[in-house]
Amino acid sequence: MLPEDELVGLIARAAGASRDVLVGIGDDAAVLRDGLVASTDVLVEGVHFDRSRLDARAIGARAAAANLSDLAAMGARPLCLLAAFGLPERFGEVEELAEGLASHGVPVAGGDLSRAPVLVVSVTALGRAERPVLRSGGRPGDLLAVTGPLGGQAASGYTLPVTPRLAEGAALASVATAMIDISDGIAADARRLAEASGVGALVRLADLPRALGASLEQAAAGGEDYELLAAVPPEAALPSWATVVGRLREQPGVVLVDAAGMPRTDLVGYDHFA
Amino acid sequence: MLPEDELVGLIARAAGASRDVLVGIGDDAAVLRDGLVASTDVLVEGVHFDRSRLDARAIGARAAAANLSDLAAMGARPLCLLAAFGLPERFGEVEELAEGLASHGVPVAGGDLSRAPVLVVSVTALGRAERPVLRSGGRPGDLLAVTGPLGGQAASGYTLPVTPRLAEGAALASVATAMIDISDGIAADARRLAEASGVGALVRLADLPRALGASLEQAAAGGEDYELLAAVPPEAALPSWATVVGRLREQPGVVLVDAAGMPRTDLVGYDHFA
Repeated sequence: MLPEDELVGLIARAAGASRDVLVGIGDDAAVLRDGLVASTDVLVEGVHFDRSRLDARAIGARAAAANLSDLAAMGARPLCLLAAFGLPERFGEVEELAEGLASHGVPVAGGDLSRAPVLVVSVTALGRAERPVLRSGGRPGDLLAVTGPLGGQAASGYTLPVTPRLAEGAALASVATAMIDISDGIAADARRLAEASGVGALVRLADLPRALGASLEQAAAGGEDYELLAAVPPEAALPSWATVVGRLREQPGVVLVDAAGMPRTDLVGYDHFA
Repeated sequence: MLPEDELVGLIARAAGASRDVLVGIGDDAAVLRDGLVASTDVLVEGVHFDRSRLDARAIGARAAAANLSDLAAMGARPLCLLAAFGLPERFGEVEELAEGLASHGVPVAGGDLSRAPVLVVSVTALGRAERPVLRSGGRPGDLLAVTGPLGGQAASGYTLPVTPRLAEGAALASVATAMIDISDGIAADARRLAEASGVGALVRLADLPRALGASLEQAAAGGEDYELLAAVPPEAALPSWATVVGRLREQPGVVLVDAAGMPRTDLVGYDHFA
């Protein structure tokens, strides 16, 4: 099977266009003409979670967080969630799943149900942004900053609760030229931001804030941390919780260098299809 | 497992609320404060379709149609779709699936991909309505009208192309007191409209417009026709393509009567969880 980013490219080619849609496939979320921001994610049992290790409430909370994180990466304020569940036979925790979805304080405004061979939770988050921050606005010289420690999910076996960085995204939206949420490791997501911006990037692995117990490899290439990665002009005032980990540059390609300045080409991030 | 409508009730209880959401779970689509209308549906291989009988383009077209039909039932104009795909290994028709989704002229503005044991297509449709028509506005004495022939999908084995009744929904929105799309058979959907409106209903089976080859039972209780059912005041001018099939009344409960006036209590509509 093709890698995820190539599959997304295939979908984008077939997707059609309209004057209502300002930003379509390829960013963290779609942006409509009136400032509406919308994102969809799907979590599948056996791929994204294991029911023996996460209960229904945690699965719902995680599914909502993944989407709200996409809104955070646009600097958007969330309005509501829509949820579609595929339920295996004898699954009896629909209410707990919905409670988990609603646990971030954003209401579930609609949904659909079906039977399915495994538990499937597909969530759409709707929000609004006065000035949506895209992946594509980064410029050479911009600093790359992250909102918090990385690698914690990989180190924990992907069981930690996720807090979408909504306040951080809204704060960074006033200075960031580009933003993305780190869902597949900074190695993959810095590349996505740089490619969308038409620039290259240098990331200093020694500067990555590491979650407790996370290895350098987990911090760089582990999935589902849901911190934000923002490009900000070097003169911008950064909030104290943001950590500078690299910069954008003219030279194409994304290079992750270790403490000795040597590139680590083995760190490529997480791909569900690889 | 509980019937679908009871599961939806469980989710609604856990869903939370917000001043941004005017209409939440329980109608065809959610309505936000600014007139945005949003609907989610999920189609699962082996439940809603069979890949040996529908190709990827037809599956995509169907998934989009199911959602656009929900917008039609609110009288909304569609803006865009968001799609989440669960893809089995060796599935090579992602582009065809996306082409099918976009085949109704509404662009796909965003999406997500995952592996999954069977093909899962979850679609969210976003639209806008100046005056969204809910399920709940029906009054005793209103006529019940349908937009087209019923039972065609059941008669064909659920393989016919679906055309969402967007123009019809927009036209009926100016006169309808309540509206719903007929996705589970008029027996089930007339009950949903009547219950949401706090009234009863009488449907005359002999008056149902029947699709070619459809039995009376298929016209009344077959799924996935995606025609609209509207309640309209008796004095309203109905478009020529609308067929009156019954009326709302004070007396609670929904009764389907045959040509002799006898109730047919065996016709209950389609429930994926029954």
